Amino acid sequence: MELKDYLASRRTLIDETLAANLPPADTHPPLIHEAMRYAILGGGKRVRPILAIAAAEAVGADVAPLLVHLCALELIHTYSLVHDDLPALDDDDLRRGRKTTHVVFGEAIGILAGDALLTEAFSWLARPLANVDAARQLRAIADVARAVDSTGMIGGQVADLVAERWEHAPKDRDSLLRELDFIHRNKTGKLLTASVLLGGVLGGASDAQLDALKRYADALGLAFQIVDDLLDIEESSAVLGKTAGKDVAQGKLTWPALLGADHARAEVGRLLAEALENGDRIAGPVNYLGAIARYICERRS
Amino acid sequence: MELKDYLASRRTLIDETLAANLPPADTHPPLIHEAMRYAILGGGKRVRPILAIAAAEAVGADVAPLLVHLCALELIHTYSLVHDDLPALDDDDLRRGRKTTHVVFGEAIGILAGDALLTEAFSWLARPLANVDAARQLRAIADVARAVDSTGMIGGQVADLVAERWEHAPKDRDSLLRELDFIHRNKTGKLLTASVLLGGVLGGASDAQLDALKRYADALGLAFQIVDDLLDIEESSAVLGKTAGKDVAQGKLTWPALLGADHARAEVGRLLAEALENGDRIAGPVNYLGAIARYICERRS
Repeated sequence: MELKDYLASRRTLIDETLAANLPPADTHPPLIHEAMRYAILGGGKRVRPILAIAAAEAVGADVAPLLVHLCALELIHTYSLVHDDLPALDDDDLRRGRKTTHVVFGEAIGILAGDALLTEAFSWLARPLANVDAARQLRAIADVARAVDSTGMIGGQVADLVAERWEHAPKDRDSLLRELDFIHRNKTGKLLTASVLLGGVLGGASDAQLDALKRYADALGLAFQIVDDLLDIEESSAVLGKTAGKDVAQGKLTWPALLGADHARAEVGRLLAEALENGDRIAGPVNYLGAIARYICERRS
Repeated sequence: MELKDYLASRRTLIDETLAANLPPADTHPPLIHEAMRYAILGGGKRVRPILAIAAAEAVGADVAPLLVHLCALELIHTYSLVHDDLPALDDDDLRRGRKTTHVVFGEAIGILAGDALLTEAFSWLARPLANVDAARQLRAIADVARAVDSTGMIGGQVADLVAERWEHAPKDRDSLLRELDFIHRNKTGKLLTASVLLGGVLGGASDAQLDALKRYADALGLAFQIVDDLLDIEESSAVLGKTAGKDVAQGKLTWPALLGADHARAEVGRLLAEALENGDRIAGPVNYLGAIARYICERRS
């Protein structure tokens, strides 16, 4: 199957799983359930569950019984977007080409819908799985939680908020680079790595396979963020479906801003090679890890 | 041991567990970790972990290895307070006699600190436990998540927000009573019940004991909320450590407002009797469940 068809088929599976497992919109009180479904069912590339599915398939797993658990990653990603978009944070009105959740439902429901998506994620992750050792599943839950806690995704988000106020602060270039690296690894990288590993762990990967998956994901996660920053300076809002050029306008700390776009592009190339090498180390019958890495690094939106 | 001394000793255990297991305040980025610790370490009655500890002790468990897991309940309760206090929700400046988290750290960090406390809770709940069956622990995590999701605590909070805007809406008394019951059971009741059950499940309770614990907790949870509403109309802000009389001022839907204070007090008495009867059904060597129920129903703040 070509990558395009693979991605389309997996996205369909993911969208169906999300729609079928979120509480119906008329569940009492309907306001919160409409908001949750609005936030999550309005499109999106589904990168995290796709990576998890691809990892599980690469190690030979049947993903059907794992879909709900792997889709929990999309709930977490979406909750983080809903909260990031709030007026007190990035104050964004547009996301995935539509009005953001708090613009449609109000700020209070925006906050609570994010909370509810995060809570739902752990509810899905803890659902019993017939063919997975329960102790292994517990470790997987703890790993996902750690990836998105105050020392992970939320920590990256906070460091990013603080960095936005650095514009006029005298700081040496090395400290800035270290902080930028912290922000990238945490704000985006750790959940991407956790997604690949969740697919591997629940899919029954060996330790050697988990090691390759981790190296693959770490390289891809950093590349993903640098590509995001490059796109922000290169593409228009229409293509991105969100407000472009914001990073530069806000004097935000980004890799291209610090090192120049050429250096940033070269770094993406190096990271892609690392991801491909490690993706290839898993010799499963269905392995789209390399193709997905190439797609993410070469995307235009 | 007298109840007063029991509560004090268990609170000390809880405070020590929270302080030792939250990331240190200087963990990078310090801002979020200072905010998390500020929110949780500023006092509070610790009702939920105390109930969990009392349930575990009542069924004969050694609680020392379970403390981190049971204290996760306090993380969840505190996250819900931090978010409830935000300007977009209840807009409260005062909590437990101190400035609320968003007043001290700003609204963005208030939102993210709440998110981080909720995430941390699931990280703690998923930590390996030597003497608990992993499948049983998974069920416990799912039960806690369900108690505080959009059909539980968050749903109750949303229904409460909607009800605040009902003041001038023509509604029959039966619909109002049904909605009030939904709010109470979900906003406060389900997490209290989940707390008692978490102690029982991780403490190794039998099915018969879990049944008694559930009945105990359901009665106590509803009584707890009615007492809260009664205190709001009877006590001053100084005693409560939060703004009193707010419910009446806001025309909020409460049991005393709908049925009168006398009827509400009688209902507390009936629920206390039910809690005592079921608490006594557990014949452990250390059983403070009844004493705690009496304390909660007869408290003055």
